[in-house]
Amino acid sequence: MAEQIDVRKRILAENDARAQEMRARFAAQGTLVLNLISSPGSGKTTLLEATVRALAPELRLGALEGDIATERDAQRLRDLGIPAHQILTGGACHLDARQVHAALGQEGFNDLDILFVENVGNLICPTSYDLGEDFKVVLLSVVEGADKPYKYPAIFSKARTTVITKADLLPYVDFALEDVRGQVATLKPDGTFLVTSSRGEPGIATWLDFLRTALAAKRRAAATTRR
Amino acid sequence: MAEQIDVRKRILAENDARAQEMRARFAAQGTLVLNLISSPGSGKTTLLEATVRALAPELRLGALEGDIATERDAQRLRDLGIPAHQILTGGACHLDARQVHAALGQEGFNDLDILFVENVGNLICPTSYDLGEDFKVVLLSVVEGADKPYKYPAIFSKARTTVITKADLLPYVDFALEDVRGQVATLKPDGTFLVTSSRGEPGIATWLDFLRTALAAKRRAAATTRR
Repeated sequence: MAEQIDVRKRILAENDARAQEMRARFAAQGTLVLNLISSPGSGKTTLLEATVRALAPELRLGALEGDIATERDAQRLRDLGIPAHQILTGGACHLDARQVHAALGQEGFNDLDILFVENVGNLICPTSYDLGEDFKVVLLSVVEGADKPYKYPAIFSKARTTVITKADLLPYVDFALEDVRGQVATLKPDGTFLVTSSRGEPGIATWLDFLRTALAAKRRAAATTRR
Repeated sequence: MAEQIDVRKRILAENDARAQEMRARFAAQGTLVLNLISSPGSGKTTLLEATVRALAPELRLGALEGDIATERDAQRLRDLGIPAHQILTGGACHLDARQVHAALGQEGFNDLDILFVENVGNLICPTSYDLGEDFKVVLLSVVEGADKPYKYPAIFSKARTTVITKADLLPYVDFALEDVRGQVATLKPDGTFLVTSSRGEPGIATWLDFLRTALAAKRRAAATTRR
C-alpha cells in the first residue's frame, strides 16, 4: 500500500509540474482554460456545441476532448468549425497534463481566447489532476438526482463553477434544485452556481455571461503581467 | 510506469484471489450475487428499491452500497426492511473484494437468496475489480445519451446484462434506443438487454423475471454441487 501511495505521489507531482508550465504559457497568451468534469452523459459536449454556436463569431475557441474510446465528441465540435482534438486515454479514467501538453502541439491551438478541456466522463478520477486550467467546472444534469454533491464532495469542493444542465427536464423528474444549490454552497462557499439547458428553457445565457466575465478578467491579468 | 503497472498487477491478483474465495462461499449457499455498475445518477438505488418492494415478500435480499461519501443509499434500502450496509471508499472510485468480504461479516448477510452489490457510481474503474459476483450488470439511463456503449466499451463488453433505466423519459429526450441495443449486441453478443423504468412505464417486470431465472439457475448449480 505504501508503495502504491509513493508511486501515485510521484505521478501527481510530475503532472503538477507540467500543468504549471502550461498555466504560465496560457497566462502569457491570455487564454482562458476550463477543465470540464462530469458523469458520462451530463451534457458536456452538448453544452460546448451550444457555446460554440453562440460565441464562435466573436471569440477564438478550441476544445480538447477526453474519452476512453471513439472520436465522436471532437468530430461534433469540428463540425461546428473550431479546432477540436480527441485525446483517447485507452482505459484511463481521467486526462493528465502530459496528454493535454502533447495535444496543444496540434495546429490551431495557439492564441485561443478560450480553450475547453472536456475531461473523461467521471466524477471522481479527474478531480486530482491539474491540467493547467484556470478552474474546474463541474456539470450535473437534473436527471442524475439531487444527492450528488454530498456523494462526490471532492469535485464539488474543487470546482469553482457548478453548472446544472438539462434544466428543461425539471418538470419530468424529481430534482430538488434548491437542495442541490445548498449542498454546493456548503462545499464551495465562494463558487458560482448556474442553471442551464442546452436544448430549451432556461437556455445558456448565464453560462455565456460567466465565460465573458472570466475571459475579461484573464485578459486584464495578462495585460498587467506584460506591463 | 513499469513500477506502477507491477503494483497494479499485484493489487488485482490479491483482489481476484479474495473474490474467488467469496465466489465459492456464495456457490455453496446458492446466493446469487450481482455487481451493479453505472454512472452516478443512472438509477441503481432506485431500481433496487423497486426490486425490493417487488421481491422481498418471496426472497431474502441484501445489499452492499458503495459510495465515496454519505450513508444515504444504504439507509434508503434499510428503510424497506432488508439488510443493507454502506461501504465508504473515502475517495476510491470502485469497490474491491476486501471491502465486500469485510462487509459480509455484518449481521443479516448469511444465507441470502440475492445479494446486490451496488458499486461506486463510475463507468470505468469498477470494471477491473472482481467482487465474487455471478455477473456484472451495467445500467444506462436514457438521459445519458446513445453514444455511451462505444465510449465505454470495457464495461459494456464485460457486463452480462445491460439494463436501460428511466425509459419513462424516452418521450422527452433524444435517445436512439435501437442504436444502443446494436452497440451492446456488438460488444456483448451473448448478453441480455433489458429496458426498464422504476417510476412508470414500461416498469421492471423483465428485470424481475431475469432475476428469478438467474436465481433458479444458481440454485440448480448449488444442488448439483452438493450431490
